[in-house]
Amino acid sequence: MMFVARVDVRLRPGIADPEGATIARALPALGFDDVREMQVGRCFRFEIDAADEATARQRARDLAQRLLANPVIEQSELELTALGPAGDRP
Amino acid sequence: MMFVARVDVRLRPGIADPEGATIARALPALGFDDVREMQVGRCFRFEIDAADEATARQRARDLAQRLLANPVIEQSELELTALGPAGDRP
Repeated sequence: MMFVARVDVRLRPGIADPEGATIARALPALGFDDVREMQVGRCFRFEIDAADEATARQRARDLAQRLLANPVIEQSELELTALGPAGDRP
Repeated sequence: MMFVARVDVRLRPGIADPEGATIARALPALGFDDVREMQVGRCFRFEIDAADEATARQRARDLAQRLLANPVIEQSELELTALGPAGDRP
Protein backbone atom coordinates (compact mmCIF):
# COMPACT_ATOMS: atom_id res chain seq x y z
CA MET A 1 0.00 0.00 0.00
CA MET A 2 1.10 3.54 -0.62
CA PHE A 3 0.81 6.15 2.10
CA VAL A 4 1.32 9.90 1.99
CA ALA A 5 3.28 11.20 4.96
CA ARG A 6 3.57 14.78 6.08
CA VAL A 7 6.33 15.50 8.55
CA ASP A 8 6.25 18.88 10.17
CA VAL A 9 9.63 19.80 11.73
CA ARG A 10 9.84 22.75 14.08
CA LEU A 11 12.09 24.05 16.81
CA ARG A 12 11.53 22.75 20.32
CA PRO A 13 9.95 25.19 22.76
CA GLY A 14 12.64 27.42 24.23
CA ILE A 15 14.96 27.24 21.22
CA ALA A 16 15.37 30.70 19.66
CA ASP A 17 13.54 31.11 16.36
CA PRO A 18 15.02 34.26 14.79
CA GLU A 19 13.12 33.84 11.52
CA GLY A 20 9.76 33.65 13.31
CA ALA A 21 10.71 36.54 15.61
CA THR A 22 11.64 38.73 12.64
CA ILE A 23 8.33 38.03 10.90
CA ALA A 24 6.41 38.65 14.14
CA ARG A 25 8.18 41.97 14.62
CA ALA A 26 7.37 43.12 11.08
CA LEU A 27 3.69 42.13 11.04
CA PRO A 28 2.12 45.05 12.98
CA ALA A 29 3.61 47.55 10.52
CA LEU A 30 2.21 45.49 7.65
CA GLY A 31 -1.34 45.60 9.00
CA PHE A 32 -1.40 42.34 10.96
CA ASP A 33 -1.41 43.43 14.59
CA ASP A 34 -3.79 40.58 15.46
CA VAL A 35 -1.12 37.94 14.86
CA ARG A 36 1.40 36.73 17.43
CA GLU A 37 3.61 33.77 18.36
CA MET A 38 4.89 33.27 14.82
CA GLN A 39 6.97 30.13 14.44
CA VAL A 40 8.64 28.91 11.26
CA GLY A 41 9.46 25.31 10.47
CA ARG A 42 9.94 22.94 7.58
CA CYS A 43 7.41 20.57 6.14
CA PHE A 44 8.26 17.38 4.26
CA ARG A 45 5.77 15.45 2.17
CA PHE A 46 6.54 12.09 0.69
CA GLU A 47 5.04 8.80 -0.33
CA ILE A 48 5.97 5.60 1.40
CA ASP A 49 5.35 2.05 0.28
CA ALA A 50 4.56 -0.33 3.17
CA ALA A 51 2.54 -3.44 3.90
CA ASP A 52 0.29 -1.74 6.45
CA GLU A 53 -0.23 1.53 8.26
CA ALA A 54 1.76 0.60 11.38
CA THR A 55 4.83 -0.23 9.26
CA ALA A 56 4.47 2.96 7.22
CA ARG A 57 4.17 5.02 10.38
CA GLN A 58 7.26 3.38 11.88
CA ARG A 59 9.32 3.91 8.71
CA ALA A 60 8.21 7.53 8.34
CA ARG A 61 8.98 8.23 11.99
CA ASP A 62 12.44 6.64 11.62
CA LEU A 63 13.12 8.77 8.56
CA ALA A 64 11.94 11.93 10.30
CA GLN A 65 13.99 11.32 13.43
CA ARG A 66 17.15 10.13 11.70
CA LEU A 67 17.33 12.38 8.67
CA LEU A 68 14.76 15.16 8.52
CA ALA A 69 14.94 16.67 12.00
CA ASN A 70 17.79 17.49 14.31
CA PRO A 71 16.49 15.92 17.53
CA VAL A 72 18.67 18.13 19.71
CA ILE A 73 16.78 21.28 18.77
CA GLU A 74 13.82 20.15 16.68
CA GLN A 75 10.67 18.14 17.16
CA SER A 76 8.72 16.46 14.43
CA GLU A 77 5.08 15.61 13.95
CA LEU A 78 3.83 12.97 11.55
CA GLU A 79 0.54 12.74 9.67
CA LEU A 80 -0.12 9.69 7.56
CA THR A 81 -2.85 9.12 4.96
CA ALA A 82 -3.48 5.92 3.04
CA LEU A 83 -3.31 6.38 -0.72
CA GLY A 84 -4.21 2.86 -1.90
CA PRO A 85 -2.22 0.02 -3.49
CA ALA A 86 1.15 0.88 -5.08
CA GLY A 87 0.73 1.90 -8.69
CA ASP A 88 -2.88 2.92 -8.08
CA ARG A 89 -2.11 6.51 -8.97
CA PRO A 90 -1.58 8.11 -12.38
CA MET B 1 -11.20 34.53 20.46
CA MET B 2 -7.73 33.20 19.82
CA PHE B 3 -7.11 30.77 17.02
CA VAL B 4 -4.00 28.78 16.14
CA ALA B 5 -3.25 28.80 12.42
CA ARG B 6 -0.91 26.50 10.58
CA VAL B 7 0.04 27.58 7.09
CA ASP B 8 1.83 25.03 5.01
CA VAL B 9 3.62 26.62 2.03
CA ARG B 10 4.93 24.42 -0.74
CA LEU B 11 5.94 24.71 -4.36
CA ARG B 12 3.22 24.40 -6.97
CA PRO B 13 3.18 21.16 -8.97
CA GLY B 14 5.62 21.46 -11.86
CA ILE B 15 7.97 23.90 -10.13
CA ALA B 16 11.40 22.33 -9.63
CA ASP B 17 12.14 21.38 -6.01
CA PRO B 18 15.91 20.80 -5.90
CA GLU B 19 15.98 20.30 -2.13
CA GLY B 20 13.32 17.58 -2.28
CA ALA B 21 15.00 15.99 -5.30
CA THR B 22 18.36 15.89 -3.51
CA ILE B 23 16.83 14.22 -0.44
CA ALA B 24 14.92 11.74 -2.62
CA ARG B 25 18.14 10.83 -4.47
CA ALA B 26 20.03 10.23 -1.24
CA LEU B 27 17.39 8.15 0.54
CA PRO B 28 17.92 4.72 -1.12
CA ALA B 29 21.59 4.73 -0.10
CA LEU B 30 20.52 5.58 3.46
CA GLY B 31 18.18 2.60 3.72
CA PHE B 32 14.92 4.24 2.68
CA ASP B 33 14.22 2.80 -0.75
CA ASP B 34 10.48 2.67 0.06
CA VAL B 35 10.17 6.46 0.02
CA ARG B 36 9.50 8.59 -3.06
CA GLU B 37 8.06 11.92 -4.20
CA MET B 38 9.86 13.91 -1.50
CA GLN B 39 8.77 17.53 -1.40
CA VAL B 40 10.08 20.19 0.99
CA GLY B 41 8.14 23.26 2.09
CA ARG B 42 7.85 25.70 4.93
CA CYS B 43 5.37 25.63 7.75
CA PHE B 44 4.23 28.69 9.70
CA ARG B 45 2.37 28.49 12.98
CA PHE B 46 0.89 31.52 14.65
CA GLU B 47 -1.91 32.71 16.86
CA ILE B 48 -4.52 35.09 15.57
CA ASP B 49 -7.01 37.13 17.54
CA ALA B 50 -10.40 37.47 15.80
CA ALA B 51 -14.09 37.80 16.63
CA ASP B 52 -15.06 34.54 14.98
CA GLU B 53 -13.67 31.69 12.95
CA ALA B 54 -14.63 33.11 9.53
CA THR B 55 -12.73 36.35 10.28
CA ALA B 56 -9.71 34.46 11.60
CA ARG B 57 -9.66 32.27 8.51
CA GLN B 58 -9.89 35.30 6.21
CA ARG B 59 -7.09 37.15 8.04
CA ALA B 60 -4.83 34.09 8.11
CA ARG B 61 -5.43 33.45 4.41
CA ASP B 62 -4.63 37.12 3.61
CA LEU B 63 -1.42 36.90 5.60
CA ALA B 64 -0.43 33.64 3.92
CA GLN B 65 -1.11 34.90 0.41
CA ARG B 66 0.38 38.36 0.85
CA LEU B 67 3.41 37.70 3.00
CA LEU B 68 4.19 34.05 3.66
CA ALA B 69 3.95 32.49 0.20
CA ASN B 70 5.10 33.63 -3.21
CA PRO B 71 1.89 33.00 -5.19
CA VAL B 72 3.77 32.77 -8.47
CA ILE B 73 5.52 29.54 -7.52
CA GLU B 74 4.02 28.50 -4.19
CA GLN B 75 0.67 27.34 -2.88
CA SER B 76 -0.45 27.53 0.71
CA GLU B 77 -2.78 25.47 2.81
CA LEU B 78 -4.39 26.72 6.01
CA GLU B 79 -5.51 24.80 9.09
CA LEU B 80 -7.23 26.70 11.86
CA THR B 81 -8.00 25.58 15.42
CA ALA B 82 -9.90 27.55 18.04
CA LEU B 83 -7.89 28.17 21.19
CA GLY B 84 -10.47 30.01 23.33
CA PRO B 85 -10.87 33.64 24.47
CA ALA B 86 -7.83 35.92 24.28
CA GLY B 87 -5.83 35.78 27.48
CA ASP B 88 -7.21 32.33 28.26
CA ARG B 89 -3.75 30.84 28.01
CA PRO B 90 -0.85 31.07 30.44
